[in-house]
Amino acid sequence: MKIICSKSELLKGVNTVLKAVPSKTTMPILECILIDTTEDDIKLTANDMELGIETRIKGDILDKGKIALEARLFSEIIRKLPDSEVTIQTDEQCRALIKCEKARFNIAGKSGEDFAYLPEIERHKNIAISQFSLKEIIRQTIFSIADNETNKLMTGELFEIDQNELKVVSLDGHRISIRKIELKESYDHIKVVVPGKTLSEVSKILSGGIDDEVSIYFTDRHILFEFDETMVVSRLIEGEYFRIEQMLSTDYETKMTINKKELQDCIERASLLVKEGDKKPIIINILDDYMELKINSYIGSMNEDISIEKTGKDLMIGFNPRFILDALRVIDDETIDIYLVNPKAPCFIRDEENHYVYLILPVNFNPGV
Amino acid sequence: MKIICSKSELLKGVNTVLKAVPSKTTMPILECILIDTTEDDIKLTANDMELGIETRIKGDILDKGKIALEARLFSEIIRKLPDSEVTIQTDEQCRALIKCEKARFNIAGKSGEDFAYLPEIERHKNIAISQFSLKEIIRQTIFSIADNETNKLMTGELFEIDQNELKVVSLDGHRISIRKIELKESYDHIKVVVPGKTLSEVSKILSGGIDDEVSIYFTDRHILFEFDETMVVSRLIEGEYFRIEQMLSTDYETKMTINKKELQDCIERASLLVKEGDKKPIIINILDDYMELKINSYIGSMNEDISIEKTGKDLMIGFNPRFILDALRVIDDETIDIYLVNPKAPCFIRDEENHYVYLILPVNFNPGV
Repeated sequence: MKIICSKSELLKGVNTVLKAVPSKTTMPILECILIDTTEDDIKLTANDMELGIETRIKGDILDKGKIALEARLFSEIIRKLPDSEVTIQTDEQCRALIKCEKARFNIAGKSGEDFAYLPEIERHKNIAISQFSLKEIIRQTIFSIADNETNKLMTGELFEIDQNELKVVSLDGHRISIRKIELKESYDHIKVVVPGKTLSEVSKILSGGIDDEVSIYFTDRHILFEFDETMVVSRLIEGEYFRIEQMLSTDYETKMTINKKELQDCIERASLLVKEGDKKPIIINILDDYMELKINSYIGSMNEDISIEKTGKDLMIGFNPRFILDALRVIDDETIDIYLVNPKAPCFIRDEENHYVYLILPVNFNPGV
Repeated sequence: MKIICSKSELLKGVNTVLKAVPSKTTMPILECILIDTTEDDIKLTANDMELGIETRIKGDILDKGKIALEARLFSEIIRKLPDSEVTIQTDEQCRALIKCEKARFNIAGKSGEDFAYLPEIERHKNIAISQFSLKEIIRQTIFSIADNETNKLMTGELFEIDQNELKVVSLDGHRISIRKIELKESYDHIKVVVPGKTLSEVSKILSGGIDDEVSIYFTDRHILFEFDETMVVSRLIEGEYFRIEQMLSTDYETKMTINKKELQDCIERASLLVKEGDKKPIIINILDDYMELKINSYIGSMNEDISIEKTGKDLMIGFNPRFILDALRVIDDETIDIYLVNPKAPCFIRDEENHYVYLILPVNFNPGV
């Protein structure tokens, strides 16, 4: 194989597929990037068997062929080359010569034949969405997936399409995040659970333009994201996702409207008094036109008043400060509405159009504190 | 004690003295910042017994007194407060109330009486130098101090003043870095060894302006840096510094002039083939109008030619790439001169005015490679 392409084009491609290279594996071939030019395109591929990414880059093919190169080393070499044309040439022993201006690297590769190709995905069911929207939806829900594998379904996110609405849900047993978005067209009903890792890697590669589209294809076992010159294929998580409808009551006893940044800054200050692993709740005392936020830990105590608009009853309730903060950090609205029922029932942060709903369970506290 | 000062002024002061708070200590009082208002100024002090920093901040003293507050917590609280006036008020149980707008923190402090004050330094011998110059000199030498305590003197830097010249030297057994700078006035002879940690912390606090001065005072056991509203006192390292003069030959067999950035980029590329702890040298082959740089490790091989201007003999010599890179990264000149004798003798990178000299020992290599 012999190809010539610009350093910048090569680096862009390598950085894209690098997201699917596992950091630890017992199979050295998975740590490689495949360069395949057998089909008139220069294709770069990485595949950790759960998640696979393939991208096409511009360049000249002087001699067809393919080779697998150790991904970290290859990407570091490309990154450090001068900003010029790069030639990659391989021999029959799978050795690669990488030339750029006067620099010449010789590194050992592996046969491209040993590389596991991405699964073929039948392109039947698909939806189209802007890259910007997909990136936003992921950012606004990914934080509440579970980070351990005890319940596999909790490590993924529900993607459900109903007519022209895409609903994305994540939950970890303490909270639920829901984002809904209107699609330009109507589609058949689809309901799948996508691994959280896949979504966070996809979101890193998406350029995020409002006018740039991404096509998402669904099969029984896989999801395929297609955008720009790139294809991301991932396995789905199998099983029936949690029924969340019954938890989403719209009744409430107390509603407060509050400046988001003021509340966020205040909880961030309060969090200074909670060490990692410590389960100290913040206590919110909702009164007529202000709420009082209190925390009392072995480090010290803190309290602060914030102005609110309130309808309904007064209420005192405790929360894990991190759970509230996670939701506040991804909401872009200047003021938010918080709906509550009683100190034992979940609170809801949601907008009027129901574009987002964040449900957070309260924690018990000693009201005498 | 009761004081009022702006959040920004308080934060600046806290960040300055925080550099002298040890990250680990068995004495909790050393993890504190002392706020002392007994002398009509608001003084913040931190002191790890080797290095002490004291700074004055603007503000109103409503009630004189002093208190020691846990440094990390106090600095985090101040950082997270709204950008407004901060009131700090203490009671007789050494509890502190920190108020800012509607936020109120209560934290436990320690008696200011338990705090170890900075040693009194007699202000006899001193020099004046611009903050910019001192910061530059430290940056350009600090990388070649030894990072372990086997030889205490190697963990510091020699500061030697001879007439109107300040010479700063660091060495770690493999290399020597020397920076000389002309002072505005002439001073008595001074020769001390300053701990590397002190210098790197001082360099972080210095604003670095060319017109901002720093006064440096010397005693037998201490060095004192005085600038802006801040005083840094550090113990000196005791003992006789290494005699380096006999190693600094100006004879050479080969001199090459080379573009610094080209050489640096090339060695950075070559370093990709050397893993941490691996002792593979880069081999430099100096020929008539170019040098060839080669490396050959178990990861792969690399070679590259760079144009040079040469006088003297051809030469092949091996180096630890990191040692050359460390020196190149701190030199600001576009082209540099490298002086060599033979493959066993140190090489010198130095400018014509002798403002800087970097001596680097070569490593043995197998010329057949």
